[in-house]
Amino acid sequence: MEHPLNVYNNLTRSKERFVPIQSPFVGMYVCGPTVYNYMHLGNLRTFITFDMVYRYLVHLGYKVRYVRNITDVGHITTEFDEGVDRIGAQAKLEQLEPMEIVQKYTNNFHDVLNQFNCIPPSIEPTATGHIIEQIEMVKQILENGFAYEADGSVYFDVRAYMQKHKYGALSGRNVDELFENTRELDGQDEKRFFADFALWKKASPEHIMKWPSPWGEGFPGWHLECSAMSTKYLGEEFDIHGGGMDLKFPHHESEIAQNTACCGHGPVRYWLHGNMLTVNGEKMSKSKGNSFLPLELIAGSHPLLDQGYSEMTVRFFMMQSHYASTLDFSNDALKAAEKGYKRFMTAIDALEKVKAGTASTFSVDDLRRDCYAAMNDDFNTPILIAGLFECVKQINLMLEGKAALTDADLSDFKSMVHAFVFDVLGFRRENESAGNTKALDAAMQLVIEMRRKARENKDWTTSDTIRDQLKAAGIVIKDTKEGVDWMLE
Amino acid sequence: MEHPLNVYNNLTRSKERFVPIQSPFVGMYVCGPTVYNYMHLGNLRTFITFDMVYRYLVHLGYKVRYVRNITDVGHITTEFDEGVDRIGAQAKLEQLEPMEIVQKYTNNFHDVLNQFNCIPPSIEPTATGHIIEQIEMVKQILENGFAYEADGSVYFDVRAYMQKHKYGALSGRNVDELFENTRELDGQDEKRFFADFALWKKASPEHIMKWPSPWGEGFPGWHLECSAMSTKYLGEEFDIHGGGMDLKFPHHESEIAQNTACCGHGPVRYWLHGNMLTVNGEKMSKSKGNSFLPLELIAGSHPLLDQGYSEMTVRFFMMQSHYASTLDFSNDALKAAEKGYKRFMTAIDALEKVKAGTASTFSVDDLRRDCYAAMNDDFNTPILIAGLFECVKQINLMLEGKAALTDADLSDFKSMVHAFVFDVLGFRRENESAGNTKALDAAMQLVIEMRRKARENKDWTTSDTIRDQLKAAGIVIKDTKEGVDWMLE
Repeated sequence: MEHPLNVYNNLTRSKERFVPIQSPFVGMYVCGPTVYNYMHLGNLRTFITFDMVYRYLVHLGYKVRYVRNITDVGHITTEFDEGVDRIGAQAKLEQLEPMEIVQKYTNNFHDVLNQFNCIPPSIEPTATGHIIEQIEMVKQILENGFAYEADGSVYFDVRAYMQKHKYGALSGRNVDELFENTRELDGQDEKRFFADFALWKKASPEHIMKWPSPWGEGFPGWHLECSAMSTKYLGEEFDIHGGGMDLKFPHHESEIAQNTACCGHGPVRYWLHGNMLTVNGEKMSKSKGNSFLPLELIAGSHPLLDQGYSEMTVRFFMMQSHYASTLDFSNDALKAAEKGYKRFMTAIDALEKVKAGTASTFSVDDLRRDCYAAMNDDFNTPILIAGLFECVKQINLMLEGKAALTDADLSDFKSMVHAFVFDVLGFRRENESAGNTKALDAAMQLVIEMRRKARENKDWTTSDTIRDQLKAAGIVIKDTKEGVDWMLE
Repeated sequence: MEHPLNVYNNLTRSKERFVPIQSPFVGMYVCGPTVYNYMHLGNLRTFITFDMVYRYLVHLGYKVRYVRNITDVGHITTEFDEGVDRIGAQAKLEQLEPMEIVQKYTNNFHDVLNQFNCIPPSIEPTATGHIIEQIEMVKQILENGFAYEADGSVYFDVRAYMQKHKYGALSGRNVDELFENTRELDGQDEKRFFADFALWKKASPEHIMKWPSPWGEGFPGWHLECSAMSTKYLGEEFDIHGGGMDLKFPHHESEIAQNTACCGHGPVRYWLHGNMLTVNGEKMSKSKGNSFLPLELIAGSHPLLDQGYSEMTVRFFMMQSHYASTLDFSNDALKAAEKGYKRFMTAIDALEKVKAGTASTFSVDDLRRDCYAAMNDDFNTPILIAGLFECVKQINLMLEGKAALTDADLSDFKSMVHAFVFDVLGFRRENESAGNTKALDAAMQLVIEMRRKARENKDWTTSDTIRDQLKAAGIVIKDTKEGVDWMLE
């Protein structure tokens, strides 16, 4: 790889050179949503973060298998396995069958991510779709001696695990410290140790979401699905595991324990975590009333919002901060991002009108180097955007005639800028059907090249036919000294 | 219900009054796609048909649980259980993991239905997500004596079934007649009777999509998933089962046999089937080269198409024909539909400008009665559209001052018209990205011509460059017998 990528690995707490297990293939697993409610803004940030990571890996030439799950069963309302399944609880509330709840919020999740221009993952497996795989994993963990059955449930045996493996390596928490933060709660009595967690939970007779298993009717514990599905689709060891910072403990820690208990080694090379959002300096929370949804942010329909902000403004705002830093939402910051994004995209659009000069007054390679350096330093998008604003400055100077690039350099500059703006950062021109536009642009580049050749060969018939057919379809082409311009009438 | 609905029930071959098992609740199951390729236009018609059925039932006030499955395993390439799994075959072809194939074409399916303004179902279960439920059903059928195991596979025992139940009631086929149409094929030797079909298939070691079962590693037979998932989400007996006419046999017939063998009675009250498409009077088929995809129809990118037709034009065209009739696609018919839809929607839009008069010159109730009468007669959308054109006539007369409605009647008229146009028929106002599409089509015609010439001159470099550049922009070109086809991925 020409541009060595370094990532901050939460497992080793250090920045490391990214070396895939089997380059050019990269396996990446990202914890998806629990689909019992509309997507939270904090979740949106996480998914946009890993969309950017995915896009950059693809841009670097890696063949990425990107797996992001849908949690549609097993996510319990409180931390230590008591409480109720979130989906079941919401189903009762909305008087729907649990899978109707799942469908409704999965659709919302997809719609929102689509609006924010996130690329769908290669595989989007569901927890209910992998009950057998989860049961098989529980059987293996039991067989290996790291779990026990108690009255139809199966628990992970943390003490047995700790005799052979380190527990808490990812989160840095140790069991004594955890114990101090634990209250005694109902239903824990069947556990042998407070930190044990459910791999399989016995279902009560009125529980709707349940399946037969060797331990009776029940449902999988929340942490188990990610271990089972990542193993199925990415293998026992894969490259990147992503998710929100809040999942580090207990979710990701439990994943590591489960995989290790099952296969004898940890599953993941690089653990990447996206950081949280705050609003006006405070943690978002429903009880504080400062929590708004992505669609409320767009519509500006929450009392804390002065106005609505477009999807791309929000994406730009998020990209202006490093994914591992907290990000504070305020009207002032969003309005600044709106202005910044407009200035940014105005220049990117104007780049189409820049004409080549006879000599280059600045180095495209230097600018490119800075952009890659930013991204290769743990996906540092704010520094990348600063680098792209350097490009914006040069674009504006070129438009004023105060800077110039030769034909070859200009074309190089354009494709570099477009790659970072559209492919890597995932911006799109607003109010346009993006696919169509990109396709039209590509087709037109080919047509213009064909016309150029026809004219070079003095084949005026072909060149006129092209012009006429385009004209009939509302496309005007114009020859200028610098080259060929085209636009829709 | 104020408006009694009658539906043509394929099981009884007669039009019957629709009486839900537990009004106002209605359970409706529709066979969804096998996600191994881009959605076929014939499938699109089926899904738009049942979207309309769903919309009308909801409009009538029923609380509909609408289940439409995704077949992501088990659909075999040929009829009698030999051949290979379609998803697995396509995975090999595209060099992807089967679930990547599933994800890719599920996304395409959702995008296309969304473009045609189809409402997502209440639950969209997948076959791979219900392996346990399928295994449980096989166990029950075995226990009831209507299936047998043979070398790790389980087959449905049609002869045993026929001793207690009627086989072929839905399709009207009998076993003797079937026998005449059957060729002797490999792998049938383990069946006891030619008409037996697989409930569970043993997987070969190299088979990727397989799960543990009481009979060893394998995967479910295609017909089984619909029986298992409809039972799970709609109960042992539910109201409506829909699907394309081509699924009547063997798929739906097998569903009935499976459910009856499992539960002792048939699963469905009303069987509704959408009819097929023809193109210029001929059955669509890949081998004839007259088969185009929904997105090709919109882009006008298939050699048989003079131009592109918008989603709503296509929907209007489909609604102008009764769902149980065959529908012939031709440029003339589509152009007529385009004109008709434009005239129709122009009037609907102009309705906003109509001012109330002092007296009403026509009866809104009469028009409403005609609209309901049409829909209550087995969802007769062409008659409904004729009724709405009566409304269009009145709208135009009102605009000319030659007809009038009082304020109250006008408001009543508006809400009636809007309900049928937008809620029931599912039309929506089109936003104009049409210019872009037309331009893209023109540019692509030129590119295709240039590629043709390059190939004629054996200039493979140019022809490959064109293909690659288009591919990078999301345009796929395909050579067919009739010429070159292109579409956006």
